[in-house]
Amino acid sequence: MADMKRAADLLQSWDRILILSHRSPDGDTLGCASALSRALLALGKSVQFRCADPVPKNMAYLFAGIEYGDFEPERIVTVDVADKALLGALEPLGERVDLAIDHHGTHRPFAREIWVDDTAGAACQMIYKLVQVMGVEITPEIADCLYTGISTDTGCFRYSNASPETHRIAASLLECGARAAEINRAMFETKSRAAVELLKHVYGDMEFYHDGRCAVLCLTRALLEETGAGESELTGVSSFVRQVEGVLIGLTLQERGENEYKVSMRSNAPASAQAVCARFGGGGHKFAAGCTIHAPLEEAKAQIVAACGEALKAF
Amino acid sequence: MADMKRAADLLQSWDRILILSHRSPDGDTLGCASALSRALLALGKSVQFRCADPVPKNMAYLFAGIEYGDFEPERIVTVDVADKALLGALEPLGERVDLAIDHHGTHRPFAREIWVDDTAGAACQMIYKLVQVMGVEITPEIADCLYTGISTDTGCFRYSNASPETHRIAASLLECGARAAEINRAMFETKSRAAVELLKHVYGDMEFYHDGRCAVLCLTRALLEETGAGESELTGVSSFVRQVEGVLIGLTLQERGENEYKVSMRSNAPASAQAVCARFGGGGHKFAAGCTIHAPLEEAKAQIVAACGEALKAF
Repeated sequence: MADMKRAADLLQSWDRILILSHRSPDGDTLGCASALSRALLALGKSVQFRCADPVPKNMAYLFAGIEYGDFEPERIVTVDVADKALLGALEPLGERVDLAIDHHGTHRPFAREIWVDDTAGAACQMIYKLVQVMGVEITPEIADCLYTGISTDTGCFRYSNASPETHRIAASLLECGARAAEINRAMFETKSRAAVELLKHVYGDMEFYHDGRCAVLCLTRALLEETGAGESELTGVSSFVRQVEGVLIGLTLQERGENEYKVSMRSNAPASAQAVCARFGGGGHKFAAGCTIHAPLEEAKAQIVAACGEALKAF
Repeated sequence: MADMKRAADLLQSWDRILILSHRSPDGDTLGCASALSRALLALGKSVQFRCADPVPKNMAYLFAGIEYGDFEPERIVTVDVADKALLGALEPLGERVDLAIDHHGTHRPFAREIWVDDTAGAACQMIYKLVQVMGVEITPEIADCLYTGISTDTGCFRYSNASPETHRIAASLLECGARAAEINRAMFETKSRAAVELLKHVYGDMEFYHDGRCAVLCLTRALLEETGAGESELTGVSSFVRQVEGVLIGLTLQERGENEYKVSMRSNAPASAQAVCARFGGGGHKFAAGCTIHAPLEEAKAQIVAACGEALKAF
């Protein structure tokens, strides 16, 4: 496994580099790609960037002013990609990756050289250090890119993956000129009209069972079509149901096909989402698990709510 | 004006100290009070704490295990109190305050000695430094109290008042054992059932005007009674209307009396909430202003929406 020094040496010796982000790109994979692009360009390299899915409109600023070249790539680098399947439509390129930079403990090696640091709250923390080892100055633009990845992957420093090092890097990035407040507003506060429509249903249609200790939300295909909500609006909705005071188990039932419902379950201690989902052939972690139920909506809901009731009897 | 060293010297020389927080207490004033209480108790002092309003249930952990004494106070210290009027029902004590520790640039002096640092994102940043100057170890309990104040006053590091120093102090507090993820969940994620009811209306009843560039929310007394929402649920609602994509001016109309509506207006650049509210005799900052309109709801709404339309013509 390559370490940071090795990754820096390789990148400094290479040229005509193609950087790849994972499909359904988030702030971290795009923050890495844009910051690394800027750093390699500063070193005089020719750089390209590709992703199977488009860059979300609200993250376009990451790539503003970058001039990508038109050439046959000699080297391929992935950032924040834990598995080559996550390259999506670009998966065939996964066989030819020269260097993978990633922070997932679950990284499944696919590249010739890999540098994985699963203590990093965001892959952008790794790029922050790499850029400096390569002798590139952290410009305000690079600082914006790295701050975006760190802030989005840690829920704006909210989660347990925000370590002391995460905060110290954020401090340095602010000093380098990162526009933190503006970035956070764009990433966390601005809601699309579709999101507003979805939230109306989330808060309006949430049902409570078992003395308010179980909250249920049903997302039918008709509802999602009506609201116009897509994947980006749905992100995070499954955790909303757990956030209500008194709720030990929160679940969303999302219609996936004819009489097919995907259950996303979140629990608060001591309740185990995993234990309930296991009864339906599903799995996951103790507090975040899932399963699929094949039945009409009302029946699927009755089954899973009854199982939650059984589990809640213990508390 | 006292500086930190002077504040530390005074506190070290005093005993039988009463600490006061401001009314409608938030995480910062309570984080300061609880952390300072723990530090002074560690120095062997007798300490009391008072606040005009009760400590919110979700912040009770700040004071867990603190043993306050029963004595006639010799000294009074206020934390995060910008004006003695903010002591609420305890305002008469404002005349007798020996030391005021505050981070508001708008601090109106009322104490014999004051230490104000308006570069601190939270008053808890000041207490963090003060505690160390007094030679007290930052225990995990003190770290929890200080982290709570810093996180809540900066919107979990989201706003522009989160400085490099804010992040570096947060890093140290994590190393001292602050339970950041747990605290942030309690402060930012957990919603009361009344909040869920209110959010249903916020997202369901929000109205859009002027090509979606103006969003309006009406909060009648009947609605607030129906949802059971109080001041703590209402906090932040006035900024929700500005957070919708495309909205330049967002406003809430809150019923205050018979045909009396308080308008809270928030705008995004280049729109000026201040300019619109000024037309109704109100004031505030460019992007956050307010005014009061005396008229029945529909008429009040029509007046303010028309004024927003006028202002939006320029863009």
